[in-house]
Amino acid sequence: MKKLIKNATILTMESNRLVKGDIGIEKDRISFIGKMPDHFDPEYEIDARNHMVMPGMINAHSHGAMSLLRNYADDIPFWEWLTEKVWPIEAKMNSNDVYWGTMISIAEMIRSGTTAYADMYFHSEETAKASLEAGIRCSIAKGLVGSSEEDEQRMADTRTLYKEWNGAGDGIISVMAGPHAPYTCDASFLGKVMNLSDELNIPIHIHLSESEKEIEESIKKHGKSPIAHVHSLGLFKHHVLAAHCVYLMPGDIQLLREENIYVAHNPLSNLKLGNGIASIHEMKEAGVNIALGTDSSCSNNNLNLFEEMKMASLLAKGKTTDSTVLSAFETLQMATKNGARALNLEESIGVLKVGGKADLILINMDQPHWYPHQNLISSLVYSSHGSDVETVIINGKVVMEKKEFKTIDLEKIKYESKKIVERIY
Amino acid sequence: MKKLIKNATILTMESNRLVKGDIGIEKDRISFIGKMPDHFDPEYEIDARNHMVMPGMINAHSHGAMSLLRNYADDIPFWEWLTEKVWPIEAKMNSNDVYWGTMISIAEMIRSGTTAYADMYFHSEETAKASLEAGIRCSIAKGLVGSSEEDEQRMADTRTLYKEWNGAGDGIISVMAGPHAPYTCDASFLGKVMNLSDELNIPIHIHLSESEKEIEESIKKHGKSPIAHVHSLGLFKHHVLAAHCVYLMPGDIQLLREENIYVAHNPLSNLKLGNGIASIHEMKEAGVNIALGTDSSCSNNNLNLFEEMKMASLLAKGKTTDSTVLSAFETLQMATKNGARALNLEESIGVLKVGGKADLILINMDQPHWYPHQNLISSLVYSSHGSDVETVIINGKVVMEKKEFKTIDLEKIKYESKKIVERIY
Ligand SMILES: [Zn+2]
Ligand SMILES: [Zn+2]
Repeated sequence: MKKLIKNATILTMESNRLVKGDIGIEKDRISFIGKMPDHFDPEYEIDARNHMVMPGMINAHSHGAMSLLRNYADDIPFWEWLTEKVWPIEAKMNSNDVYWGTMISIAEMIRSGTTAYADMYFHSEETAKASLEAGIRCSIAKGLVGSSEEDEQRMADTRTLYKEWNGAGDGIISVMAGPHAPYTCDASFLGKVMNLSDELNIPIHIHLSESEKEIEESIKKHGKSPIAHVHSLGLFKHHVLAAHCVYLMPGDIQLLREENIYVAHNPLSNLKLGNGIASIHEMKEAGVNIALGTDSSCSNNNLNLFEEMKMASLLAKGKTTDSTVLSAFETLQMATKNGARALNLEESIGVLKVGGKADLILINMDQPHWYPHQNLISSLVYSSHGSDVETVIINGKVVMEKKEFKTIDLEKIKYESKKIVERIY
Repeated sequence: MKKLIKNATILTMESNRLVKGDIGIEKDRISFIGKMPDHFDPEYEIDARNHMVMPGMINAHSHGAMSLLRNYADDIPFWEWLTEKVWPIEAKMNSNDVYWGTMISIAEMIRSGTTAYADMYFHSEETAKASLEAGIRCSIAKGLVGSSEEDEQRMADTRTLYKEWNGAGDGIISVMAGPHAPYTCDASFLGKVMNLSDELNIPIHIHLSESEKEIEESIKKHGKSPIAHVHSLGLFKHHVLAAHCVYLMPGDIQLLREENIYVAHNPLSNLKLGNGIASIHEMKEAGVNIALGTDSSCSNNNLNLFEEMKMASLLAKGKTTDSTVLSAFETLQMATKNGARALNLEESIGVLKVGGKADLILINMDQPHWYPHQNLISSLVYSSHGSDVETVIINGKVVMEKKEFKTIDLEKIKYESKKIVERIY
């Protein structure tokens, strides 16, 4: 089906230039940007007057099903949060729970303009199923924790996930290997993960250097930082999506840069859990590819990349006490282009281009907090919010129009998640 | 006119307990909370099913008219921002511009649940006029800068503002004295301001200790911090609303506490201008009354207290690397009760209570980012956003219902501000 988006203010993210014009979509791809060619004969039209059209946001680190734990354990110490709150609930969660917990997150992400996300959790086939049904692009890693007896079973699980789901939904589903963190996966286990990554040719999604405690223990155990440790094991020979990288030792940034590691920065989660502020400006200056993530809504507590953008930029300025660092446009790149690279999808998403996948969002600029219309790129990062997103198209399919879900039954999500919460708490 | 709000989830902010029930409003005041008395005969009903009802947010520091400068000067150094961007534009602004610039801000504030604000700018009678017409509560200070020749004229200006506007609109307008900052007002000028404050019995709204440069220059000039300096001049004998207090010297916090100074914390503006993060946890532990402000949308770039709340709490956790500090409820108190104290309106607003002024907001909890409904106070601070506000009542009057403005003509604001922007830029 051919779709036409008319009268838009277009930000392709190939540059920071705004163009007025139309966008054509044919099946899953963008067929033109600017002026409609004569032969184009749209069956579906969307009027984008007063709307900005840009690439959908990409959430490079999340644990979708944890929305079931949203606002359940706040304002308490990190270890109490993890061991006394999160783990006991997770122990009760079955595959049906993961499906509905993920569905809450998908609804929220689509509502706030996210069109692709990287997920790490368990019962990951449910994450794939929910994403496919809702029509959101997802790179799924089954969270792996090393334990000698079951190592092979865990590799087999990811192999099965890959066989059953990689490339599903015309490619909107892809699979990664998901070793949880160097402190929960030993060297031998990480070795097996690397073999698996080679075997299936899939990226690796891992937590790295999130807390001070993690660094201290890594130095005690391995004599080096978590980043230097996994590098010495050969992990960085693969495509690695590394969440957090808050606590860095001398040499860490250089490793991240030289080995082309894709960092997922989660500014709100890092603050909320008391882990502080990552050195984003330093990493960016060194040339590290930095994407943005929300982490779970149990440590945020929402999944709104507009909030992450504003905070990433403001925290970088605050941390360096320099109001010129991490400009609005650079921040937008983190949420789009850099996210696409992190998910190994640079060819198809992250910018609007002819022939690229049609993952795009329409943002309503006709609101008090957008006026007067001056620098609209500044507006997007500093004044706007995910709630300004009106319409969302993923892989050429309209999944939300004028805030109305087309693929998601919100009432059913509410009903099912209420039942689950009553059971697991 | 009697109004009834039915089926609400009520957070009075007198405690953190949520009650299900109804709220009655008679003229400008709350007449009951909980169960409707038999004699109450409402002429207007609002169904608050799935909505939280709580006191309106109070913005303790802003410069409303500066929304005309929103997104006009970002990602540049503070002094370039101020002297090369802000001042030249402000020099071109007339009273009509201040009126329309303020109207943009009022529309945005009401839309995001703010029912009262403290403002400091020039042509302040226009701020009063716009606030009165829109029906938003406002404490207005004419920004004063000391300069020997015109000192008396400036005092006279505030005297006139007071006479013409203080108490207008059934008390929604009040007037403060507004010496800009100790570095722009010398000791003699501040003395005159203090006399004026005594004469009219009005609070003083001032910028204090916003930037490192300010501290350095104060020490060079006066041998003490800006806070110690104005204290030594006797300023703290008055009700003082002090914006920022980011850079503190030893002894400063004790002075703020002992002298009952009302601090307006502007976390986003402080970050954006590269001024860093105020020591909110330390001040709070010492017992300082801390309210929340947005500062202007030229340094933020919006006027959304939900963003300030989330950031205040998360930044306090990040700065102390302690996830337990500044709980969700304490943060809500900053945006409501503490704001009311800061504006010297503690008797009438800041909490919902029988006999209190009816300044309240209805927040739509029926949205993906609120589910599942667990700790709703956490939801308000960590998951919610100003865009969740549906209905706003100020001084007993409905100023927005289901996101529709009742007192504001948004189309006219857009039209007029566009004309102004074309002229002044
Ligand atoms: Zn994580
Ligand atoms: Zn200010």
